[in-house]
Amino acid sequence: MKDRDVRLDFARSDRLGFDEAILCARKSDAQLSRIMDEYLSRGASALMTRLDPAVAARLLSSHEARLDYDPISQTAYFNWTPPRHTDFEPVAVVSAGSSDIPQAAEVIRTLTYFGVRAERFIDIGVAGLWRLLQEVDRLKTFPVVVAIAGMDGALPSVLGGLIPGSIICVPTSTGYGAARDGETAFCAALSSCAPGLAVVNIDNGYGAACAAYRIVNAIRQCQRRSPSD
Amino acid sequence: MKDRDVRLDFARSDRLGFDEAILCARKSDAQLSRIMDEYLSRGASALMTRLDPAVAARLLSSHEARLDYDPISQTAYFNWTPPRHTDFEPVAVVSAGSSDIPQAAEVIRTLTYFGVRAERFIDIGVAGLWRLLQEVDRLKTFPVVVAIAGMDGALPSVLGGLIPGSIICVPTSTGYGAARDGETAFCAALSSCAPGLAVVNIDNGYGAACAAYRIVNAIRQCQRRSPSD
Amino acid sequence: MKDRDVRLDFARSDRLGFDEAILCARKSDAQLSRIMDEYLSRGASALMTRLDPAVAARLLSSHEARLDYDPISQTAYFNWTPPRHTDFEPVAVVSAGSSDIPQAAEVIRTLTYFGVRAERFIDIGVAGLWRLLQEVDRLKTFPVVVAIAGMDGALPSVLGGLIPGSIICVPTSTGYGAARDGETAFCAALSSCAPGLAVVNIDNGYGAACAAYRIVNAIRQCQRRSPSD
Amino acid sequence: MKDRDVRLDFARSDRLGFDEAILCARKSDAQLSRIMDEYLSRGASALMTRLDPAVAARLLSSHEARLDYDPISQTAYFNWTPPRHTDFEPVAVVSAGSSDIPQAAEVIRTLTYFGVRAERFIDIGVAGLWRLLQEVDRLKTFPVVVAIAGMDGALPSVLGGLIPGSIICVPTSTGYGAARDGETAFCAALSSCAPGLAVVNIDNGYGAACAAYRIVNAIRQCQRRSPSD
Amino acid sequence: MKDRDVRLDFARSDRLGFDEAILCARKSDAQLSRIMDEYLSRGASALMTRLDPAVAARLLSSHEARLDYDPISQTAYFNWTPPRHTDFEPVAVVSAGSSDIPQAAEVIRTLTYFGVRAERFIDIGVAGLWRLLQEVDRLKTFPVVVAIAGMDGALPSVLGGLIPGSIICVPTSTGYGAARDGETAFCAALSSCAPGLAVVNIDNGYGAACAAYRIVNAIRQCQRRSPSD
Amino acid sequence: MKDRDVRLDFARSDRLGFDEAILCARKSDAQLSRIMDEYLSRGASALMTRLDPAVAARLLSSHEARLDYDPISQTAYFNWTPPRHTDFEPVAVVSAGSSDIPQAAEVIRTLTYFGVRAERFIDIGVAGLWRLLQEVDRLKTFPVVVAIAGMDGALPSVLGGLIPGSIICVPTSTGYGAARDGETAFCAALSSCAPGLAVVNIDNGYGAACAAYRIVNAIRQCQRRSPSD
Amino acid sequence: MKDRDVRLDFARSDRLGFDEAILCARKSDAQLSRIMDEYLSRGASALMTRLDPAVAARLLSSHEARLDYDPISQTAYFNWTPPRHTDFEPVAVVSAGSSDIPQAAEVIRTLTYFGVRAERFIDIGVAGLWRLLQEVDRLKTFPVVVAIAGMDGALPSVLGGLIPGSIICVPTSTGYGAARDGETAFCAALSSCAPGLAVVNIDNGYGAACAAYRIVNAIRQCQRRSPSD
Amino acid sequence: MKDRDVRLDFARSDRLGFDEAILCARKSDAQLSRIMDEYLSRGASALMTRLDPAVAARLLSSHEARLDYDPISQTAYFNWTPPRHTDFEPVAVVSAGSSDIPQAAEVIRTLTYFGVRAERFIDIGVAGLWRLLQEVDRLKTFPVVVAIAGMDGALPSVLGGLIPGSIICVPTSTGYGAARDGETAFCAALSSCAPGLAVVNIDNGYGAACAAYRIVNAIRQCQRRSPSD
Repeated sequence: MKDRDVRLDFARSDRLGFDEAILCARKSDAQLSRIMDEYLSRGASALMTRLDPAVAARLLSSHEARLDYDPISQTAYFNWTPPRHTDFEPVAVVSAGSSDIPQAAEVIRTLTYFGVRAERFIDIGVAGLWRLLQEVDRLKTFPVVVAIAGMDGALPSVLGGLIPGSIICVPTSTGYGAARDGETAFCAALSSCAPGLAVVNIDNGYGAACAAYRIVNAIRQCQRRSPSD
Repeated sequence: MKDRDVRLDFARSDRLGFDEAILCARKSDAQLSRIMDEYLSRGASALMTRLDPAVAARLLSSHEARLDYDPISQTAYFNWTPPRHTDFEPVAVVSAGSSDIPQAAEVIRTLTYFGVRAERFIDIGVAGLWRLLQEVDRLKTFPVVVAIAGMDGALPSVLGGLIPGSIICVPTSTGYGAARDGETAFCAALSSCAPGLAVVNIDNGYGAACAAYRIVNAIRQCQRRSPSD
Repeated sequence: MKDRDVRLDFARSDRLGFDEAILCARKSDAQLSRIMDEYLSRGASALMTRLDPAVAARLLSSHEARLDYDPISQTAYFNWTPPRHTDFEPVAVVSAGSSDIPQAAEVIRTLTYFGVRAERFIDIGVAGLWRLLQEVDRLKTFPVVVAIAGMDGALPSVLGGLIPGSIICVPTSTGYGAARDGETAFCAALSSCAPGLAVVNIDNGYGAACAAYRIVNAIRQCQRRSPSD
Repeated sequence: MKDRDVRLDFARSDRLGFDEAILCARKSDAQLSRIMDEYLSRGASALMTRLDPAVAARLLSSHEARLDYDPISQTAYFNWTPPRHTDFEPVAVVSAGSSDIPQAAEVIRTLTYFGVRAERFIDIGVAGLWRLLQEVDRLKTFPVVVAIAGMDGALPSVLGGLIPGSIICVPTSTGYGAARDGETAFCAALSSCAPGLAVVNIDNGYGAACAAYRIVNAIRQCQRRSPSD
Repeated sequence: MKDRDVRLDFARSDRLGFDEAILCARKSDAQLSRIMDEYLSRGASALMTRLDPAVAARLLSSHEARLDYDPISQTAYFNWTPPRHTDFEPVAVVSAGSSDIPQAAEVIRTLTYFGVRAERFIDIGVAGLWRLLQEVDRLKTFPVVVAIAGMDGALPSVLGGLIPGSIICVPTSTGYGAARDGETAFCAALSSCAPGLAVVNIDNGYGAACAAYRIVNAIRQCQRRSPSD
Repeated sequence: MKDRDVRLDFARSDRLGFDEAILCARKSDAQLSRIMDEYLSRGASALMTRLDPAVAARLLSSHEARLDYDPISQTAYFNWTPPRHTDFEPVAVVSAGSSDIPQAAEVIRTLTYFGVRAERFIDIGVAGLWRLLQEVDRLKTFPVVVAIAGMDGALPSVLGGLIPGSIICVPTSTGYGAARDGETAFCAALSSCAPGLAVVNIDNGYGAACAAYRIVNAIRQCQRRSPSD
Repeated sequence: MKDRDVRLDFARSDRLGFDEAILCARKSDAQLSRIMDEYLSRGASALMTRLDPAVAARLLSSHEARLDYDPISQTAYFNWTPPRHTDFEPVAVVSAGSSDIPQAAEVIRTLTYFGVRAERFIDIGVAGLWRLLQEVDRLKTFPVVVAIAGMDGALPSVLGGLIPGSIICVPTSTGYGAARDGETAFCAALSSCAPGLAVVNIDNGYGAACAAYRIVNAIRQCQRRSPSD
Repeated sequence: MKDRDVRLDFARSDRLGFDEAILCARKSDAQLSRIMDEYLSRGASALMTRLDPAVAARLLSSHEARLDYDPISQTAYFNWTPPRHTDFEPVAVVSAGSSDIPQAAEVIRTLTYFGVRAERFIDIGVAGLWRLLQEVDRLKTFPVVVAIAGMDGALPSVLGGLIPGSIICVPTSTGYGAARDGETAFCAALSSCAPGLAVVNIDNGYGAACAAYRIVNAIRQCQRRSPSD
């Protein structure tokens, strides 16, 4: 098969305000190298997600100078120049248990790539409710909160009744048996008794960051227009 | 088919300490009448569950004197003499939303039939967390708490991290879509981040009351034996 | 059972910026009347959702003066005074097929209740792509777009690649067989190839409106603070 | 990411009467070491669950003196001083087949950690009913019975009709095909024809022990109060 | 559409030893009448299954002389002459609860239609184990036992460990929630710890009778050949 | 844990006519060795199923003289003396594709262990219907036919309409995607349009052989009693 | 809501060669009337599917002259002039059982609307294989065969191994229990051992006709181009 | 087991116009070698699918001269002489993302084996809609389009509304969480709002090619008959 086997969407940033990311799972080393070379040849930067440490190690040997890899979130910044960041932290990233840290890291790494600051609140699952309650006043000040929880996914429901900002839920595949690889957490978030929760796919920290970015972007647009609606 | 079509388990009380209940759903009026007559002929009392109001109305016309029907819980006491009740209230029955009231009523009616007192705490779902928090100190004093919640089923997880007593969860079929007729609530209870929750079937208020009764019974047995372990 | 059987969360508006709604499905006429009387006694207004036309007709006979019922969305405004609305329309409500109109109506009725203007774009499912493409330029100007689609749920994915604003997806139970009562549409939205879609429960127009309101609210807060980030 | 990435719930014991356990599955060696060090620095003990033998071997090399590892249950006691145990054995742990032994071991190891004695009854699945029937009289004397079974999960139903104590069911993932990784056993326990069974998650021996502990604790509390209800 | 819309398989009896039955569910009155007329015109008899009482009443008005309807099993014999029956009763039909009686009746009515005697054992579910144990010695004498149970489906597993004959399980849709309309009972039968259970579809009494008939037929064939293998 | 951890059911043969088999999956080498030693100490033989080749190789090194291992069916005969076999072949074992050969082998190895002869018919799936049709006349002569098929599971339905004997279906996990690890084949067999198919668990060749053995045993019993019914 | 609530895709025929159909399920009488009026005002014809007889009766009273309704397929031709039909019958419509006739009728009514002739073959399910085998030679002559079957869905697999033409499978919701409302038939068709089957949604006769039309159209296009490839 | 364990269907080509392929997944090296030898001995060629690279490497060592292996599609041509190909390219193979390339390659390799030309269109998923829109005019000229997409599976719906040819959808297992291993993509294709899509199994590139071949074959047959219908 001689024909070209990648056709990248370099115009995405113009349409949406942010670049296409490279989902590395299920791509061969050869495919990834070809894609990275195409980015380099255009002087474009890329966010790489779901990049396995072993694959990353192999890619680093050939592209080391330009690859900033983080093993916890399994993301890499490729050929990246840090953008000017937001002055304040519009996004809070809240996680329930220590098994949810990789997804929290993916959210923050993606937002950082987009130039958006975020603050992390960890281990505030509802089984030790005091840890959550002592942060509520600060969480109320964020326009966007990303809530990350697996197993029973009870954290988003509790948050949703306490804080007024936009809440984006990332159900995680933490747990076993009735946790059903994240299905229970994501059905719980969707059928929450708290109103107005928005949900992304299981373990999809990248998607939550994009959803948060869309809101941050909307806020910026409106701020530019006029200070009163 | 001329042969007998009911064989009742009148020895259950001797084995388990409580009677077989009559699950009325999917039984014809004729079947129910025959069963009730068999109970009458032995001078036995019965708890009837899932008894539809329309069916109850028809049965009342023939057995009115001995049938105490409650439409909210859809239960009836048949040929029943109130037992001597426990002096204190060992069971708290906690429900999340007003749609969960029928199941709460089924728990309390069943416990009452068994001679066990219970206290009801309603509408303390986690979306309005203050309602739950203001009851925590009292809930901590109960040896057994029955927690009833549908939709996301977050209530048991929050309770499980706050109170030390035995917690029996009744997931309910309240909700739609991702609530999956109670599946989400019952998977959430089973995969809770709070330790030691015990779960019964969806909408199974009767089963929760029996599980609570088994514990109350065990407490009584141990109290009789010795005040110290 | 003599004790109170409703405990309303009148403080929700202070915490979240919007009132608790009354989910009418699975509540009896008596329960609804009691809840409405409690609202009246406090001079509070209420949004009622999933209010069946037959039940609405019965409630209208007793509370007609104060009940504004809409049969398409199956919502009612109770004891309601129109709030001051936003000056511009921050929310676009986009629906794929004519079977999705009830959910679109629920979104708009809820936003109207909250004082938020919205514009409706109907019948722009992807099977007739020209209908969607001719609206893209206008859709790009909205900070929030609610995308409503059943069956294959392809509309959100196409929108997600074309417009930069926040996108809230309402999968609907339209369709049969492999549409699985909305499960396919909601899994499609969650696993979309377009980045940053946020999803609410199947047929949950009310929830989508609340999620949109949280964003509109965040925009307002930020506008008050400062015109530049 | 420089900020702290673990926030432990050391107050749990005060609230619930027992400590938080460390679920080791899906945690890296580094995370586990950090957590263990935090426990050590506070002089706290910990129960570790789902600790893979290979990981345990690596941790033993650094923390050997304080780590008591059991490969069958895949649990470890860390920095643990045996508590004063109950004088009698309040818990019977009953397992159906020899494939269910790891879960039975997890129950007993957890109870032992909490200072509660338990007696084990193995291989009494219903396919060889005589093995179960010859133990019934002894099983009737226990206030709490933990019933462990996979595949068809028939054991809890049979027990539930024979013994009066509290029954906590642990469905296991034993079996294949229609056993559905434990789903069949746990649905069977939840929809049992025997009344009052309480169920925990698939393979969740730790959770069953916690549920048993809550009951044992309630019995102790009541014994302290008064010998008669 | 003028062309013929039924093509019956009158040769089935020659191939299999028993006739095609008419599954009446989802067929219109008109379709059923046409099929019955085709049977009449050939002088053939028919077993009709899943025949709703209301439909039966309408068909009786036109075909009364030849239609023997049983409302419990919802079966009818049409144009039927009782065959010569087996001299002994080769099939035991065992049911767990009184909700399973319709399926038991369908098995027996079908066997009777085929000329095979059966004996019925009712209400011997495992929750009252003594009822089952007192019948074991008699059940051991049957070459074929049909075991009918819903909910947790524990009966077949217990039987399977006690009796040597062929066991055909009919899971029923009795129960709610985790019973999953019969799915749990049928998965339990299929993943039973007792060896050699054979299972038919949920509520499929007709199918179980056919499976039993195939075995009875095989026994007859072998008896004709030679008394020793 | 010092107490005995295996309790074997050596009386099973007296009750059912055949021995308990040892399901080797998920048992450790140590457990298997202990079980084998217990069999040896009683002079009992055993059938071992789901015995992985690697495990078998290790066990062979210690018990070689008495272990007859077959890698295709992953079964072993331990301490086994061939029984007197049936004179004729009462069981036909029919498989659809070459991926179903391991299950066919498990059926035949189990029957051989029990002393029952069987004949194998391979690769007669319905996609090449002629292969099946040319064997129909011979298949009609068997009292019992075991039909093994994965993927769409169409073979049992076609057989069920052509042959009069007892048909035991073994759905297999062959296939991918919509084959759902055997779920499609087993639902197809259960909902077959052909009457009287009996089904065992996915890939359960051992169970099918036991079900066949129960029938063969019933035939023998009846032959001993009397040559005519 | 004053704005237009229907936007029809009248250009579909130009793009695809056939008109948009009106799916009537879940549309109100008022919606249907408005849509029909819009068609009338443009002089366009319409195919209406899933039109309930009761709704059809009401619509007929207002639009009788132009509405040709067929109750078996629940379809209507509205404002329709018969097109010039194909000279030969390129499509065979094969159905397994008499419960599948409505879907077969929907296929044929749709093809007729499009001007394509079809021949119907009924009741040739595999349980009576001779009925299918005697039609094979004729079925081989059709370029397109629509195969309609519910329950186990075995018919398409058998056909797929016998005939060379294009095969479009319509799984139907016929059956109960393990038939899972058509899921089993459609998974069976998708995982068939016969190569090259193409599948449409459960009960989707309209979709199968459209798929057949696309092929017939392609054949016509190619015939116009050149008689040899 | 001494008897033959493969029975090949060499007559398939006569019946269907194309050969049986060898599905290599789950076959041992020994089985594959025996099958290949049987093909060689008859001088027949074979297409091998799902042939793992490691297995292929081992087979190549013994059969190198005759084995043409492609690692991307994991297919091999064995003992193959290229057929005379179609003069034009009747099939377009369209894939959504770069993770779908293996399936696209399987389609094209299979068609090439059958002598049918195809053109490949890659990376035209709907998230970058312009890539699809710029190919629409060319795609309209193909009689058959194979559309390959995973995740949300939106591509077939968009195509289905734009092009008139026959569309065969291959859902792929690309994605995670709510993508459910391809289930979402295949349900989306089946419940598409675009009319007349035909679907094959998840990742079944071979099946799609066979379905395309059946249509191409039908076109050829009709072209031979007459240039006008």
